[in-house]
Amino acid sequence: MDVVDYTPQPEQYVWTFGGAPPSHRIKPGTLLRLWTEDAFCGTLRDVTDLPSASLNMPFVNPQTGPFHVEGAEPGDTLALHLVDLTPARGWGASTTIPLFGALTSTDRTATLQEPLPEQTWIYEVNSDRNTVEFVAQSTDLRLELPIAPMLGTVGVAPAAGEVRSSLVPDVFGGNMDTPEMKPGVTCFLGVNVDGALFSVGDGHYRQGEGESCGTAVEGAMHVTLLVDLIKGGAPAWPRIESDDYLSVVGSSRPLEDAWRAGQVDMIRWLGELYGLDAMDGYQLVTQISESPLANVCDANYSAVTKLAKNLLPPADAYEGMHRKLRDLAATL
Amino acid sequence: MDVVDYTPQPEQYVWTFGGAPPSHRIKPGTLLRLWTEDAFCGTLRDVTDLPSASLNMPFVNPQTGPFHVEGAEPGDTLALHLVDLTPARGWGASTTIPLFGALTSTDRTATLQEPLPEQTWIYEVNSDRNTVEFVAQSTDLRLELPIAPMLGTVGVAPAAGEVRSSLVPDVFGGNMDTPEMKPGVTCFLGVNVDGALFSVGDGHYRQGEGESCGTAVEGAMHVTLLVDLIKGGAPAWPRIESDDYLSVVGSSRPLEDAWRAGQVDMIRWLGELYGLDAMDGYQLVTQISESPLANVCDANYSAVTKLAKNLLPPADAYEGMHRKLRDLAATL
Amino acid sequence: MDVVDYTPQPEQYVWTFGGAPPSHRIKPGTLLRLWTEDAFCGTLRDVTDLPSASLNMPFVNPQTGPFHVEGAEPGDTLALHLVDLTPARGWGASTTIPLFGALTSTDRTATLQEPLPEQTWIYEVNSDRNTVEFVAQSTDLRLELPIAPMLGTVGVAPAAGEVRSSLVPDVFGGNMDTPEMKPGVTCFLGVNVDGALFSVGDGHYRQGEGESCGTAVEGAMHVTLLVDLIKGGAPAWPRIESDDYLSVVGSSRPLEDAWRAGQVDMIRWLGELYGLDAMDGYQLVTQISESPLANVCDANYSAVTKLAKNLLPPADAYEGMHRKLRDLAATL
Amino acid sequence: MDVVDYTPQPEQYVWTFGGAPPSHRIKPGTLLRLWTEDAFCGTLRDVTDLPSASLNMPFVNPQTGPFHVEGAEPGDTLALHLVDLTPARGWGASTTIPLFGALTSTDRTATLQEPLPEQTWIYEVNSDRNTVEFVAQSTDLRLELPIAPMLGTVGVAPAAGEVRSSLVPDVFGGNMDTPEMKPGVTCFLGVNVDGALFSVGDGHYRQGEGESCGTAVEGAMHVTLLVDLIKGGAPAWPRIESDDYLSVVGSSRPLEDAWRAGQVDMIRWLGELYGLDAMDGYQLVTQISESPLANVCDANYSAVTKLAKNLLPPADAYEGMHRKLRDLAATL
Repeated sequence: MDVVDYTPQPEQYVWTFGGAPPSHRIKPGTLLRLWTEDAFCGTLRDVTDLPSASLNMPFVNPQTGPFHVEGAEPGDTLALHLVDLTPARGWGASTTIPLFGALTSTDRTATLQEPLPEQTWIYEVNSDRNTVEFVAQSTDLRLELPIAPMLGTVGVAPAAGEVRSSLVPDVFGGNMDTPEMKPGVTCFLGVNVDGALFSVGDGHYRQGEGESCGTAVEGAMHVTLLVDLIKGGAPAWPRIESDDYLSVVGSSRPLEDAWRAGQVDMIRWLGELYGLDAMDGYQLVTQISESPLANVCDANYSAVTKLAKNLLPPADAYEGMHRKLRDLAATL
Repeated sequence: MDVVDYTPQPEQYVWTFGGAPPSHRIKPGTLLRLWTEDAFCGTLRDVTDLPSASLNMPFVNPQTGPFHVEGAEPGDTLALHLVDLTPARGWGASTTIPLFGALTSTDRTATLQEPLPEQTWIYEVNSDRNTVEFVAQSTDLRLELPIAPMLGTVGVAPAAGEVRSSLVPDVFGGNMDTPEMKPGVTCFLGVNVDGALFSVGDGHYRQGEGESCGTAVEGAMHVTLLVDLIKGGAPAWPRIESDDYLSVVGSSRPLEDAWRAGQVDMIRWLGELYGLDAMDGYQLVTQISESPLANVCDANYSAVTKLAKNLLPPADAYEGMHRKLRDLAATL
Repeated sequence: MDVVDYTPQPEQYVWTFGGAPPSHRIKPGTLLRLWTEDAFCGTLRDVTDLPSASLNMPFVNPQTGPFHVEGAEPGDTLALHLVDLTPARGWGASTTIPLFGALTSTDRTATLQEPLPEQTWIYEVNSDRNTVEFVAQSTDLRLELPIAPMLGTVGVAPAAGEVRSSLVPDVFGGNMDTPEMKPGVTCFLGVNVDGALFSVGDGHYRQGEGESCGTAVEGAMHVTLLVDLIKGGAPAWPRIESDDYLSVVGSSRPLEDAWRAGQVDMIRWLGELYGLDAMDGYQLVTQISESPLANVCDANYSAVTKLAKNLLPPADAYEGMHRKLRDLAATL
Repeated sequence: MDVVDYTPQPEQYVWTFGGAPPSHRIKPGTLLRLWTEDAFCGTLRDVTDLPSASLNMPFVNPQTGPFHVEGAEPGDTLALHLVDLTPARGWGASTTIPLFGALTSTDRTATLQEPLPEQTWIYEVNSDRNTVEFVAQSTDLRLELPIAPMLGTVGVAPAAGEVRSSLVPDVFGGNMDTPEMKPGVTCFLGVNVDGALFSVGDGHYRQGEGESCGTAVEGAMHVTLLVDLIKGGAPAWPRIESDDYLSVVGSSRPLEDAWRAGQVDMIRWLGELYGLDAMDGYQLVTQISESPLANVCDANYSAVTKLAKNLLPPADAYEGMHRKLRDLAATL
């Protein structure tokens, strides 16, 4: 097995999907052991560190990569299996950024009100207990919360020559900010350019569904992932398979459109796996889909459609790629 | 304990929140044993029964009630504890209704495309296995799905003299269509008129999050519920407490606004329970909220914000009303 | 010609569409000479009058009526020709209401920001010059603006037994808040209940498109209108005909849905008038429709689709009802 | 005066904002005489030419440029004065593209319905009468419509290293598709990169507000424009000044957000011109803004806020740049 270890230096950070030369050329089947910097480039270390002073916009959400996958061509399907995500620092940070977030006006949901105050929360990591600690600032409340590591950002280079900010999710994946992107899952992404040019970043030690204030418990991450390639079969939207679920992530505005896009692609997937026509698929997702929100704060919102495998007949999506990669991961 | 048993006759069905005289006057503390007709008034019994022939619009979603709760005044909080929901028929039905549903154009998301075909699915109930059976019409796929009974519609009379269709959810509750409205929960609703005038209906034997096609596995239901009253404290949006979760249901369009409304009310609730200010509440829901969709098909969409109690300090919302009613239910 | 003069006393104000007994029973062909109170019930008379102190929510937007039109049955089309609108007071008022308006968060577009301040502007009417005067409060700017009288609210009783607040626009008309509702136009509304039960109110001495802050130059109005009835032909959404334009007003959320609803109904209208199929109608509105916003602040937003008659072949919508009523008005 | 004449060859077409090397380096004050190809690259010439056969996606909306403006730096304001737009061919074309347009489901407003049929309309240009002819396909209706030439696409390279499709409008301008972009106006765009790198394209011989079906009367155009530069003062959103109006174009989803963004920037502009604070500006736009839609079909929707100059005190926006350029144009 080819193995690539890579900890990018700050000058190697990448801020877009598309538009950056590959950091590495790898073969399908490669194991990557990566380090991802946090969304704030590690600048928020104390509750007194505020984004307006510490962040150098638009240089947030640095990406590790992009990786050129040999043989990947437009229309193919990239498979990324998240073997492991382990916090790489002893603290995570979250903050409010003026006019960014779900419960504030923004440059688009524009109002004349004053922005919310900037405020930073630091979450100490307790590795033994596998928790981070929320420390309230208005009371003496402290809460231990389980670490639930995930990657906010997983994506490939967009189609049509576009170059998109690492802050935006869309059909190419990107900043989907869904807690579903966690260890043990396989993410399937349609390839738009030769080599796919995927990258990852924006580790979260935990995040609620919706990422209300715009920033999760952001933290640097050790990322272990297996890369593989399926010829053809590019899905319309990012798909995620775990041992327990099939998921699709749609990203758009308004939020109903993000969800609709994922629903329709899930119905397509049911058609591929079980031969159900669209009306039967529509009926089935109506009764069994779980629909957790991912983010309602980014340039596009993301919503997930999830189907529990235990409600469905066995099926080998992408010729069993998820099982193959999970089994391979188990041998590492 | 006062006990009221009530199976409305068809001429007693109610089609609105507000605008109907009470079926009963009850005291706080009353146990109700009700029967609710299904959303289709029981007319869809076979896959050949189609809504355009069988339904008599707008007479769908019949309500059982309304109940006048003695002593309830505007600004008070009605507590409805769902003791039990048991399917009252051996089958449930789901159907596509032209220009109704999430994955079709509607009279508002208006397009020039042809409506989707009308199609009805019948789900046989297997009481022993506690399942309903999905029977595909385009393949020979059959799937046993667990029964997960819930009420689509729980609400009070609206404020400001309005009378609203039993098809619409809003601040008064109504057709929220969330799987969270299940046995064991306590629903808190703000009272708008003397007596509250609440009603229930629209039982679902199961439903996915989002209710994609517009109709769940609709079925008549035996409903057992305990009614209580808290003076004052009316929440802005319907709140639901279970042994495991605190939830708020927002309803609006676009979908992000439904979710935002629920999030902001949850942050208010955290303030009430723990003294957190809005910024701390914002931060906390960012990291711990679960955000399952309820419906994306009704006149307003509904989205849920849920917080797991095991992540929070113990608290007695509404002076422990949920625990009190759950304990009382356990004695029945 | 039957003539009805009516100036309601405060206790005769009506706050809803539907749910109120008729103030009068009239025949088609009746001329109404009405007085409508302003949206604030005349309580804002000085810049120091603020809504939180002066308004008695939800008692705003008082309606004059409702009028029972003899012979009107569900499915019929009510024709209301606005003969004249004349300001009934020497001043109009506009104000910001906390968490109401387009450029503020609201109970639905919910954020955690502070509400905007309450502030009231008084517009003196200069009858000779036919202007109102904007007086800035942050500078010494004063601007004379032409009076352009319109009715914010024109509607009939809703279908399905609903009773809706006079603040909400929907398929039944209501609080559409469009500057198109001005002297010389004929408004066509589908009848939902016997007698139609229409009412009018919410006069504006002028209003921009969108009604950004939520309140126009609100003022009491002398309203002269002719009432007529067409059997059958109920439009899906309110239609407005002037000497120069055919318009449809859609109301929903998000705003694109309000506009889509009006566009699709306009394409239907083109089919009725010229026999164009939907694709030809789609093409034609694409090239000729004017699309001014009406309001982006009410419980539903309203958007207008307008077609200039001088781009279209002559046609007699509703058998020439508009021309007939306009000619009749000219004789008054 | 520097004059540049440029008719790009097909291999010189540009499909993005950002990401392309400049076709020319020009100085502020330069006159450009350009040719722009139509959105379909001239491939739709007959009603039998359908987009699925004729278009080579994503190669639509070819841009002429980009032009590097010497001295332009991030934060500056580019001024583009449209001296003249003259149809460059004897016909224009419009068409329906499957799953593109306002009154159809799309990849985001995703439904399970069949796409609308592909259909092409050809509009013959009558230069003497200055009209194009709509020819219905379902009836024998033919309509002469005035030519009202405009540019669908005017924009600069985006910020943050992004490269965006020429089909999308956003803060950098781009495919705003507003009939306001017509001869005689000056468009002000914030500069994001050295040299601004602006381009133009997508001529329309006429277009309704909203561009319902997704394509206007698309036609090749002779474009004459004057380029100038203001140091600093970059507006948040594209601004347009004519002899009669000040306008701002916001672009986002949902449509209310596109409009809100433009409204808030207009209030900022009123502050710059007249010293009005935000509340006074809010009040004034409430009473005087015109709000025509631009497009409701592109990747972002665009909405316009327009203020008639005759309602406002005289002011010299951008130090009278519009008047200066209009006067200069009059000498050509």
